[in-house]
Amino acid sequence: MPAKKIAVVIGSLRKDSLNRKFAHEIIALAPPSLEFEIVEIGELAIYNQDLEENGATAPQAWTHFRQRIKDADGVLFFTPEYNRSIPAPLKNAIDVGSRPYGSSVWSGKPAGIVSISPGATGAFGANHHLRQCTVFLDMPLLQQPEAYIGGAANLLGADGKLNNDSTKQFLKKFIDTYATWVETNARK
Amino acid sequence: MPAKKIAVVIGSLRKDSLNRKFAHEIIALAPPSLEFEIVEIGELAIYNQDLEENGATAPQAWTHFRQRIKDADGVLFFTPEYNRSIPAPLKNAIDVGSRPYGSSVWSGKPAGIVSISPGATGAFGANHHLRQCTVFLDMPLLQQPEAYIGGAANLLGADGKLNNDSTKQFLKKFIDTYATWVETNARK
Amino acid sequence: MPAKKIAVVIGSLRKDSLNRKFAHEIIALAPPSLEFEIVEIGELAIYNQDLEENGATAPQAWTHFRQRIKDADGVLFFTPEYNRSIPAPLKNAIDVGSRPYGSSVWSGKPAGIVSISPGATGAFGANHHLRQCTVFLDMPLLQQPEAYIGGAANLLGADGKLNNDSTKQFLKKFIDTYATWVETNARK
Amino acid sequence: MPAKKIAVVIGSLRKDSLNRKFAHEIIALAPPSLEFEIVEIGELAIYNQDLEENGATAPQAWTHFRQRIKDADGVLFFTPEYNRSIPAPLKNAIDVGSRPYGSSVWSGKPAGIVSISPGATGAFGANHHLRQCTVFLDMPLLQQPEAYIGGAANLLGADGKLNNDSTKQFLKKFIDTYATWVETNARK
Repeated sequence: MPAKKIAVVIGSLRKDSLNRKFAHEIIALAPPSLEFEIVEIGELAIYNQDLEENGATAPQAWTHFRQRIKDADGVLFFTPEYNRSIPAPLKNAIDVGSRPYGSSVWSGKPAGIVSISPGATGAFGANHHLRQCTVFLDMPLLQQPEAYIGGAANLLGADGKLNNDSTKQFLKKFIDTYATWVETNARK
Repeated sequence: MPAKKIAVVIGSLRKDSLNRKFAHEIIALAPPSLEFEIVEIGELAIYNQDLEENGATAPQAWTHFRQRIKDADGVLFFTPEYNRSIPAPLKNAIDVGSRPYGSSVWSGKPAGIVSISPGATGAFGANHHLRQCTVFLDMPLLQQPEAYIGGAANLLGADGKLNNDSTKQFLKKFIDTYATWVETNARK
Repeated sequence: MPAKKIAVVIGSLRKDSLNRKFAHEIIALAPPSLEFEIVEIGELAIYNQDLEENGATAPQAWTHFRQRIKDADGVLFFTPEYNRSIPAPLKNAIDVGSRPYGSSVWSGKPAGIVSISPGATGAFGANHHLRQCTVFLDMPLLQQPEAYIGGAANLLGADGKLNNDSTKQFLKKFIDTYATWVETNARK
Repeated sequence: MPAKKIAVVIGSLRKDSLNRKFAHEIIALAPPSLEFEIVEIGELAIYNQDLEENGATAPQAWTHFRQRIKDADGVLFFTPEYNRSIPAPLKNAIDVGSRPYGSSVWSGKPAGIVSISPGATGAFGANHHLRQCTVFLDMPLLQQPEAYIGGAANLLGADGKLNNDSTKQFLKKFIDTYATWVETNARK
């Protein structure tokens, strides 16, 4: 059986993003049944439907992004929390991928969410706002284990690698369960 | 007593936006104790803290936007719903205004929310996600009347003006109640 | 293949509940691969863990309810909206079924949600609060079609039967999609 | 100026409830401009509008509860999180107090929310579901400081008293800010 292709979408644009570091750590823990591609979102112009309607041609970055999500079998989201919700760049990626109306590229892709914050609540608010989006996007969404990674800066060493065994075990369990979820719910 | 200055933030960038049309209609119904300025958000680069830290200078559009919100006594949000949450440009405006850390321009400004959709649910999902953001932003938020304007296209005539008396009465009540809310909660 | 057993949980206790009427209508539209049992929740004492810990024996209604959910292959929720969230009796059924800690009867049961209100928003707030609960409960949850039934009283005739063809077609599509969801995600 | 009367509603019925202990600690920190009454919710029959309509007389516990909330100038909620939302007894108290339609006793009472959990996320999910209820209930709601008390068991000594100075300072700031909120927003 060929590996499933998972698009990884990272909600923070910061070069030194905690979410990006955790994405790499989780990818390293994943079973061989999954292969990953980080799909960048920083170049997407802010969504405005006027940019691709009434004769306008969609920005090339939008088209490229949509194709990469379309090519994937599933999507794994990493999100920080800004103002108790998902960051603007992540919401933008979601909005861009969901249009034009009737052509959403998210539809049917099994999804997982990891929310990561320096603070204690593990970006709970962002995690659940993103979950609400996936309902409309029709993405079968992994429920357990929920992944709220709080105090995230302290879980990484100076080399940006996980230095905490129980977190590593948790993330291993998370990504293994996600792999099964993809196997069960990916469109064949 | 001088009129209170209300910044109007409109979540859709479409030229033909229903939210913009309703914003104009509500402004026209407002009591003289409020004066309004539409603060545009379409030119704001997507928020990325790397753009203003470690020696970088914040984009001018960010600085300008922040100053206009800072100058206001209150904020009135108009939001459509994209994928069961607030649109990316609105989230971006919120994120831009909330930073740098410790310098949020939203803090303490009495807020009101009007959510508008062509569909039946009146952008309920966007309305409440935005409410959750205002908690972190520390904006005293008007509770009632809740303003979910569904089937919005049918409430406007060919001239873009409200053609429905009960909606007009409702919006009049909304903006009058908001005016009282601003009077009570604006920082003196 | 034997039919899957679906527990139907109705959030309103009113004798004349719109949610109950819609539950019957949807059951009548379901494919033969599903069979339904309405599991009543009105007799459950309000959850308090002191009632079954430290030597106390759980109320019999709790034990009975838990067993009936445990026997089901999936769960279909019908919920009205009280105060922008799910009604107390439904939250109580969820809490009772989720305990004692580690013995939740909801775990792994594929779920669907229909939210029904006399008002326009179709109990959107209740629908999504219930969705958030199912994350913790680890119930694989149908995403699309979302079922927000607004103006529900007008969709039923004097005999309590659906009198609206497009709603009937929508609900048929909903229950067929749910049947596939159960087939895919039920524990074998 | 006479002290404002604050009704304290505690979401957990457990005798040994962490929320109850924190309620007592916060009351002890409050300024003299507030006086508190814990309004118990454990005896309220689960809300069912059939119990008080069509000639039925509302249960006495409902009537009594409603009167006590009506007599208050503000409401302070303490909530644990059950299944990522507010516990059934608290939702029940809210529903009972909100009816009959048009006679809600919550309306206009300035509210504050403290959410408390043994786990790390500080009952964030319950906190915000309760916030969504207060919108419909029309309760002016304190935004900052948000009070998510995670790891709560470790913040209390064997005597059930706060043993953590920074938490004590935070809660002092919380209750002082709430007192100002009540002063500003209570109906005169």
